[in-house]
Amino acid sequence: MSTPTPTLRALEGADGILLVGASDRNADLYYATRFLAPDPFAFVATASNSAMLVNDLELDRAKLQATVDSVHSRTWYAAKVRDEKNRDPQAHEVLLVMLREMELRQLLVGEDFPLGLADALRGEGIVLDVAESPLFPQRALKSASELQYLREAMGAAQKAMQAAMEVLSSATVREHKLYLEGETLTSERVRRTIHRTLLDEEYVAERTIVACGDAACDPHQEGSGPLWADQPIVIDIFPRSAVHGYFGDITRTVVKGQASPELKKVYATVEAAQKLVFDAVRGGADGAAIHRSVLSFFTDSGYETGARGGRNQGFFHGTGHGLGLEIHESPRISSVGDRLQSSQVVTVEPGLYYTGLGGVRIEDVVVVRDEGFENLTHFPKVLEL
Amino acid sequence: MSTPTPTLRALEGADGILLVGASDRNADLYYATRFLAPDPFAFVATASNSAMLVNDLELDRAKLQATVDSVHSRTWYAAKVRDEKNRDPQAHEVLLVMLREMELRQLLVGEDFPLGLADALRGEGIVLDVAESPLFPQRALKSASELQYLREAMGAAQKAMQAAMEVLSSATVREHKLYLEGETLTSERVRRTIHRTLLDEEYVAERTIVACGDAACDPHQEGSGPLWADQPIVIDIFPRSAVHGYFGDITRTVVKGQASPELKKVYATVEAAQKLVFDAVRGGADGAAIHRSVLSFFTDSGYETGARGGRNQGFFHGTGHGLGLEIHESPRISSVGDRLQSSQVVTVEPGLYYTGLGGVRIEDVVVVRDEGFENLTHFPKVLEL
Repeated sequence: MSTPTPTLRALEGADGILLVGASDRNADLYYATRFLAPDPFAFVATASNSAMLVNDLELDRAKLQATVDSVHSRTWYAAKVRDEKNRDPQAHEVLLVMLREMELRQLLVGEDFPLGLADALRGEGIVLDVAESPLFPQRALKSASELQYLREAMGAAQKAMQAAMEVLSSATVREHKLYLEGETLTSERVRRTIHRTLLDEEYVAERTIVACGDAACDPHQEGSGPLWADQPIVIDIFPRSAVHGYFGDITRTVVKGQASPELKKVYATVEAAQKLVFDAVRGGADGAAIHRSVLSFFTDSGYETGARGGRNQGFFHGTGHGLGLEIHESPRISSVGDRLQSSQVVTVEPGLYYTGLGGVRIEDVVVVRDEGFENLTHFPKVLEL
Repeated sequence: MSTPTPTLRALEGADGILLVGASDRNADLYYATRFLAPDPFAFVATASNSAMLVNDLELDRAKLQATVDSVHSRTWYAAKVRDEKNRDPQAHEVLLVMLREMELRQLLVGEDFPLGLADALRGEGIVLDVAESPLFPQRALKSASELQYLREAMGAAQKAMQAAMEVLSSATVREHKLYLEGETLTSERVRRTIHRTLLDEEYVAERTIVACGDAACDPHQEGSGPLWADQPIVIDIFPRSAVHGYFGDITRTVVKGQASPELKKVYATVEAAQKLVFDAVRGGADGAAIHRSVLSFFTDSGYETGARGGRNQGFFHGTGHGLGLEIHESPRISSVGDRLQSSQVVTVEPGLYYTGLGGVRIEDVVVVRDEGFENLTHFPKVLEL
């Protein structure tokens, strides 16, 4: 991967920045090192220098892949501690030797830095300041190579959506229930088709949503059991590349059979809300204001938001979120929205949910540009199959 | 899920224990609550009482699924802070209201507790003590229902291994290279078969190893490209259930074609080492001693361990590790080994790796019993296909 080491955030008086973790679960660490590993390692960077401390098992691969100035062996530093103290070193002592060699005493760390290690390092006189989140604000601004990964991820997501649509298209209907090759067609069956398609593209998806009718009214419900005709089916796919770690994200809502006039109106309103967002998205736009305009548009169109019968109804999630190495990252187009910047990649996903009617959500992913946006999503928006 | 709330660790003078995180990435939190969620929530338990603080989106599901005494709404506590301070609350302030209502001032947390939140809570007078790892030592002792999940996970892993073997069996050989249906058979192709099989069982696998020849000498190498006849192929599958979160783990080494006499001897030695471990595994056995006995056995059999040509050779990983909600958990059968206890579930996976010869690893998963063990792995061990 040719992405250069990211510019570090302002060090705010600290000597450097310190990250410790497994980079396959820590997007900042992967972003800073471009080294994807399942086991924890340490990364330190000053204004002029960066270094990693890794297990011997990872040493060769890290030297080859990581975009840092030097890669050091944990075993080697552990031996130094052992020589000095005549006993096996504790984890923080090994790191400490490297920090002292680099003459680092005050370090910025992220909010999620592990407390056990922090207490141990502080106990040895290292000053750790917790930086505000996001740790690397520039992660929201996608480079050309990152955009390429995201385009590819959106390609995989759309291929999976296409596979799902093909299953639904070839299903038959008997007494309002969907059947495929003689068997009841379920959320699980469609999800399996989606996951198989993604697997073949080297993408991994979890919590893929195939939710029919009222099940879609809870945005965390993945959906299960038989799929029904004439009811909205929300399909939300957000796969992560097993190769480069970037996410795709797409949602479509479809009906197998006939949508009621009421549902058609909801669908048209959600689609219009998405267009309204598209008209507003550009560098400098205010995410919170965009979100408020969607809410008002829904209310003005007769679609209220609020709790009814103990359940949230209407539009009760954010309009959009940043997409990259995490499925939800900076910026947000929501009530706590950020100001959008050119080169950010965000979802645009208004939705309406009413018990008895079901849910409708339409989600595209766009690149914010100075004068508007580029849509990375080309999948058609059609309600009835 | 019917697993009861686990007995908490000794509170060591603290009022209770506090965990904050997303339980689909925090095994302790899932273990303590039996609530699997992708978004962060908080869990507090005293000697007599347990509570969770969750987003409104998760409230209903949490009340239904979580094995805690009460589930509280973050929105509700946030409103209290807003009323009092006339501004939007910070994340720690919402949690603080609940802690104060429960009259908790001193809390045990895990080593991985997020530093940002810890500093904020400590700033408000909450004492946080970092507990030694593992946070829940009893997590190593599997209940009857956990054993059932692990059995099921091993079933899925073995089904996937069977699918891989079938692909290798039906491959043809031309000039030492494997072909399937006219195409070069690659690590990627076998891996895809494995992952597809797991998907159908609702299991997710990452970093599955299908490594041929010298590629297997680096235990973190997943393997890529063409597979070759007459060379050992290490297949290591460790899938996680998408439903209950428990892992399976199995490794087999096979040769398509003819193994050299040298390789046959290595294979027989690794198999004998595994038997040697089986003879020693029981409640009360010393994991470190077992690991040393494997190392000695290899050395006595003429297989040295150490760096050669800048690469580790011989047997340079642990003999076994605990298996459960994490792929590597307590106890360890390694140089830093623990004493085994009945009801623990561990892998037994000796291996030998030599550049030029390739790698051989055989891995089963067993339940430790007072008088021995129960093997959860029934997959045959055959070198030549």
